[in-house]
Formats: sequence, C-alpha cells, structure tokens
Amino acid sequence: MSTQSTESTKQAASIDALSSGRVPSVEVAAHTGERIQIAGWLHALRRLGGISFLIVRDGWGIVQVVAASDEELAPLHTAHAGPESVLLVEGVVAAASQAPGGIELREPRITVLIAITETPPVILGKRELKASLNTMLDEAVLTSRHPTRRAVFRLGASAMASFRETLSARSFTEIQSPKLVESATEGGANVFALDYFGRPAYLAQSPQFYKQIMVGVFERVFEVGPVFRAEPHDTTRHINEYVSLDMEMGFIESHFTIMAVARAVLASMMERFRAANAADLALLGVTLPEVPAEIPHLHFAEAQDLILRLHGVDVRGEPDLSPQDERWLGEWARAEHGSDFLFVTGYPMRKRPFYTHPDPARPEYSNSADLLFRGTELMTGGQRLHRYEDYLAALAERNVSPEPFADYLETFRYGMPPHGGFAIGLERLLMQLTGLPSIKLATLFPRDINRLRP
Amino acid sequence: MSTQSTESTKQAASIDALSSGRVPSVEVAAHTGERIQIAGWLHALRRLGGISFLIVRDGWGIVQVVAASDEELAPLHTAHAGPESVLLVEGVVAAASQAPGGIELREPRITVLIAITETPPVILGKRELKASLNTMLDEAVLTSRHPTRRAVFRLGASAMASFRETLSARSFTEIQSPKLVESATEGGANVFALDYFGRPAYLAQSPQFYKQIMVGVFERVFEVGPVFRAEPHDTTRHINEYVSLDMEMGFIESHFTIMAVARAVLASMMERFRAANAADLALLGVTLPEVPAEIPHLHFAEAQDLILRLHGVDVRGEPDLSPQDERWLGEWARAEHGSDFLFVTGYPMRKRPFYTHPDPARPEYSNSADLLFRGTELMTGGQRLHRYEDYLAALAERNVSPEPFADYLETFRYGMPPHGGFAIGLERLLMQLTGLPSIKLATLFPRDINRLRP
Repeated sequence: MSTQSTESTKQAASIDALSSGRVPSVEVAAHTGERIQIAGWLHALRRLGGISFLIVRDGWGIVQVVAASDEELAPLHTAHAGPESVLLVEGVVAAASQAPGGIELREPRITVLIAITETPPVILGKRELKASLNTMLDEAVLTSRHPTRRAVFRLGASAMASFRETLSARSFTEIQSPKLVESATEGGANVFALDYFGRPAYLAQSPQFYKQIMVGVFERVFEVGPVFRAEPHDTTRHINEYVSLDMEMGFIESHFTIMAVARAVLASMMERFRAANAADLALLGVTLPEVPAEIPHLHFAEAQDLILRLHGVDVRGEPDLSPQDERWLGEWARAEHGSDFLFVTGYPMRKRPFYTHPDPARPEYSNSADLLFRGTELMTGGQRLHRYEDYLAALAERNVSPEPFADYLETFRYGMPPHGGFAIGLERLLMQLTGLPSIKLATLFPRDINRLRP
Repeated sequence: MSTQSTESTKQAASIDALSSGRVPSVEVAAHTGERIQIAGWLHALRRLGGISFLIVRDGWGIVQVVAASDEELAPLHTAHAGPESVLLVEGVVAAASQAPGGIELREPRITVLIAITETPPVILGKRELKASLNTMLDEAVLTSRHPTRRAVFRLGASAMASFRETLSARSFTEIQSPKLVESATEGGANVFALDYFGRPAYLAQSPQFYKQIMVGVFERVFEVGPVFRAEPHDTTRHINEYVSLDMEMGFIESHFTIMAVARAVLASMMERFRAANAADLALLGVTLPEVPAEIPHLHFAEAQDLILRLHGVDVRGEPDLSPQDERWLGEWARAEHGSDFLFVTGYPMRKRPFYTHPDPARPEYSNSADLLFRGTELMTGGQRLHRYEDYLAALAERNVSPEPFADYLETFRYGMPPHGGFAIGLERLLMQLTGLPSIKLATLFPRDINRLRP
C-alpha cells in the first residue's frame, strides 16, 4: 500500500528552501518522531468512532492526520471548512503501517488558511476519480488535482525532460520554431487560419520545415512545443492541439540512424519513469515496457507478407497499414521477439509526404520508419530528401508549385547533408503507456471540435 | 584568438556515436597527430600564394583545412563546389597557433557530398555577417548558419535549459498550457482571433491563468512556450510571437519569495552561460553580469523620490516608470550597489492587472516586483490574489463581468493558497544580454507586423 501513498518519488531536497519551514508530504517520513508543519488542501475527512482522519494533499502527495478529539478538529468546524480548504497542520510524525506512506501526523494543531464551505462539483477525496469523461474535462481545473490525474501529467513532464536530456547529451540544440506561418502548406487541409494584421496566417501543423532548416545550422536539433491540427473529428484519438516531441539530425546513414536515436530516447524515458515516477506508475497500475537493446524491425513488404501467412488476409498492394494490421504486427513482435516495440520500415512512397527519401535500392519504398508500441503507432520518422533538385522533382511530380516553399527550399539550394528525424506525440505516448480511454485525458486542457475551455 | 575559433564549448563526448566515424569540430584538437575525417559545409576558401585555406563549418564550430597543392583541391574544382557545399574532409590534425582553435587539418582528401555552384545571397564566410536588418531576417534560413547568429541561439537554448533545471531542482513541475483559448480576456485588445470550427477562438497572450490554476494542482509549475501578442507596432522592441519563461508557486510569503526564485534562476543562467557558452560569449563580445547574492530592491515610491533627488525630475504620482526612469534607476543600482540588476517593488495597483495582490500595509501599492537589468525591464512578477471574494471584488471594481473567467475563478472558489510567479521573455533576455540592435535578431524566425516568413 505504501507505494500508492505519495504520488511523487522524485527528490525534493531543496523544496523547502523557499517555504518557511513546512515539510512537503514526500519528506514527512524522514521526520518521524518530530513535530513538524505541513501545508496543503483538505483532500478528505473520515470519521471512525471518535477518531477523525484528515487527508491533507500538497503538490506532491498526501499525508494522513489523525485527530483524536473534537477539540483538535475545532478550527475546521469553526470555519465550516470542507474539502479543498487550504490548511496548515502541525503535528508529530508517527509510523503507522496502515496510513498512506506508512506515516501519519498525530496531536495536530490545525490552522485554516482558506475555508471552503461550498461542496466542489466533483469528489476528489476518493482513491478513484469517478466522473464521466465530459465532467472530467469540463471540471479539469479541479479534476487535475486528483492524485491519479496528477500522476499522468507528471509522467508527461518526465517524458519531456527525458527527451531533452537524451538529445542534449548527444549535442542536439533546442530550438523554438514559429507557430504562426504564412502558408498552409504541409498537410494541405486541416489547418487553422487566422487574421494576421489584415492578411491570412496559419497555425503550424508541425515544426517539420523549420527543424529541417535548422539542420543546416546546428546539424542536430530538437523541439518540444504545441502543434495544431484542424481535424474535424470527435474521437477518443483526436485532439486539435497537442505537444510534439520533434528531433532532426544531419549526416545520417539512413533511417536506421534515426531509429537508433529513437531507441535511445525511449530507453531513457522508461529509465526516468522508473527512477522518478515509481509512485505515479503504481497509482496508475502501469507496467513499463522493456526497451530491447535492439528494437526488432520489419520492412513494410515483409509485414504484409507476414499478415498473409499468419492471418490469411492479403493486404499486399495496400499503401498503408490498417489499425488491425498494426495490432497483428504488435502481437507478432511480442510473440516472436518478446518486444512491446516494433519498427516497420520502408512504407510505400506514394502515401508519404513529398520530402520523404526513397529507398535507393527500391525507389517505390521509402527510407522511413514508424514505431509501433503494443500494436499502435507511437512515432513516425525517417530520412528526408536533401538535394535541391530532388525537392523540385518531388513537388513537380505532385503538381505542387514550389513558390510557397521558397524559404524552405533555400535550405537545400545552399547545401544540406543527408538528414532525417522523428516526431512523438506526447499525449499519444501517455495514453498508450497508461491505458487511458481517451487521448483527451492525456493533456491538461484538451482542445477538441467541441471544446475550447477550460 | 583560439577562444573565437569554435563556437560551442559544450561537451560533445557522445556526438559521434551515431555518425560513422567523423570527428566534430569541437573534438578535433583531441586528435592531434592523427588522420581523421570531418564533415560540414564549405564556410570559406582563401588562397595565399600556392596554398589554399578551407574553413569547414559543422554544427558546432569551424576547422581550418590547408591544401598545399591544386591536386588536393581538385575535387572542389571538378564539382564546381563553392561556398556552402557539403564536404567530407580527411586529414592529419596539426597544431597551428594562427588557425582557429589552434589546429588545422593537413594533407586533406576532400569528398564533395553536395556541390553548391550558385553563390548564396549573403556571404557567410566572413567573421562578421554584414547585411541590413531586413536581409538578415529575410534570409534567416541562411544567416542563421553564421557563427555569430548561432551563438545567440545557443545562448537561448542554454537559458531555457537552465530555467527548467533550476526550477526542477526545486520540485517545480513542467506544464504545457493550451495556446488556443475561448476568451480574449487577459489583455483585452491585442489578441489574434481565429476561426475554430465555426466559432471564435484566440491565441493565448500568456499562460497566466493556466499557471495559476496549476498551482492548485502541483503548487509549483513552470512553462516554456510561445505566446502571441497582436501589437501593431513595428519597433526594435516588438515581436508578435515570443517565448515566455513562466513560473508560478504556492504558499509564498509575499512577492519577496518570487524575487528569491528569480534571483536563483538568473544566477544559474549566468553560471550555465559561463560553463557551456564561453566561446559563444567571446564571439559576441559579451561580458556576463554578476548576479549579487541579494539583488538590491527599491520600492516604487522610493524610486520616484530618488529620481527627484538625483535628477530633479518629479515623477511622483505617475502610475508607472518611464524608460528614462528605468535607465536612471539602473545607473543608480550600478553606482550605489555595483549591481546590473535591481528589483523595483510595489508598483501602484491602478496600472497592474486585476489578479495583482495589494500590499496589505499600503493597499494603493501592489505586492509586485519588476526586475531591471542594466536599466531595462527584464522580468515582471509578484503575488496574486488568492481569495475568491477578492477576485469577484477586483473584477467588479473594473466593471468586468466574471462570466468569461468562470473556469479560472473556479480555482479560487475551491481553495488556493497565497501564490505568485514571474515571466521572462526569452528574446528580451537575449537582446539585452548580447546587445542586439533589435529583438527581431534574438529569435530564429521573427514575426512582426510585416513579417510572417521565413
């Protein structure tokens, strides 16, 4: 039980330097026998006979406070302080095997900083947060306070930090590319348009063009930032603003270089989750996948052959994998390689964006790689074209004018090495890792076709 | 000279793991006497008698290559490869006190990966990048490749990393707040409007409301992300999209807690610049400021008195400081305290946003703090209101309906401790630190009233 008691296991050694003597929940156990002060929100209040159990929640976890008399509780009663009231509580730290974290605060002296007398529209004080998806999202201001919700977002923070650290250690430079762009180019449709001082502008669907441009500057770059997709779908797998973890690098051999970086990034993330988020994982009941030393990979054509052989379904000639195909391949990777991860390489060129590099040996296939995690796409990437003439030809072949791409094309006109990169959607990673029923639950304040608030 | 030779001084130990045997510029000196391979762009080519000096630029710095014969240069001539061509160069590393970084590559074998035969529209191969501001920005795809431009952006990357690390070490949680919002609330005017599936939406001017909401969840949060201001000004100090470094924390004493965090953040940034960006600073001729153990602070009213006393100008009664006032105060901090930094506290309530917390002792003044750096505002922050009733009163006093703020206000309706935070504009920091003539040069791809590209 004690693993579920405090959500956050990260080191909080310096947390107190600026907080006037209070002890954060995650450090209380280190003060057993001492009289200390904690601060936080009244998460729950339970009575058992003459004894009251207060659960106080701070930014990192919860602490049980035991009031043995009505007198000790009097400050709450006087102020009519209910759930979510903000409290200071002084008390003696005592070992208590049944309590969250194995400790509780006894002989409490309670100070009510802010008394909340109105009942919140959702009950936060239970182990599980019981509410419909709509209520969860409408009341995100409050539901985010629940330990199980915080655990998801803390995993997200760890994922971002790990991504940045892994790449920084390999001499990648962080960039911030503009989100306001002149041309709704890359994806064609599905972009948000806005009025920019009297002329049209668009919200960036991805930092793709800018990260490639920056390979000409720093060779290795990454960005963590919002991207915007005006997709008019209301499903459990769509949101219209999400956080993209993007990298791009120069002087690669092929898409296999990119795959090696992706493997390193994933392995570091899992390590970090294990080290920094053990309590979050326990609270959410998440078993982390192992990242194999080499993630198995399968060419697109072989994948289609495999599906025919194993399942009798002939998908050869299809330009892409269906969700069912991906699930079958995920099962195969699990059974054959004991791996939750599988790279599918060499997707046909005809379904890939114009900047995709073909396989020199089989030009109808691409030097691309998608990573499947437990049978669902988690990451997409690959090698890009790097010769100016190849870009002009690729656009001409698609009957697209090069004019709106002039700045982007200048990169290749004036020298670019072989390069490539990948992108991971943060929310999709969190959804798949923690088994959330909707991607809308993997972001603090989701934007969907019906939802612009809170 | 050798400090200016390679831009990046950061450790690049693992840079090579994925790059098939090439040695990055910043590691070449460690291979003196060996025959190695480098890769990069032809930055410049100079002839001196029968000898040719090639400067090869990679993502981190430059390396001089000496060709003693036309034969060694033949691959360039054959391919008509001019500046910005992408090359592999094998050669023997030799000490050469006059060369950048004190080393050069001799007996070169050059392979041209990509031959550039067209002359780029800006000359990148000189120590200084000579171009008008407009050309600098129009050609940002190329000008960003110049060592002096890269140095600015690498300082930016260090600033972001340092901000995150300093706060993470104090148990702050990283958040990503939505950039698409329903109400154009906070600033009133100056927001970009867009069509969101048939209804209006706006681009967030700041994460202010969301970071406060998240104090109710994690107590301590930070965000590094884009913000959007539709300010129709074309000046050297305005851009319409910039990167904001935001933090917010709960259970503070007053704005002085926030000032202590700001000081810690700045001190860490300067330390990081010193450790990771020594060559960048040398290239840009930047002398870093010292961050005093305690940054001097002055109340707004005292600041006005001081200006009267020192300069004979009576600005008492003005609700804000003018740029001239700020310069005078900057000079005073330098002369009186030997400090490039000065906190001005207690700005009058009437010019501050509605969520500003008043000074309990003098309610016409606020618990706010602006940080001046060499006489210009660098950071703004302070304590916020935390009581629901105070928010309702503050809005009523301004004749503003609370309705569009319903989600935000829910945070305070259901319990919030005293809290506050600050924001630093990344580009402004870089401009002030490196003495750039325009803030537009402090971001990769600036957006201004006339500029949406590249």
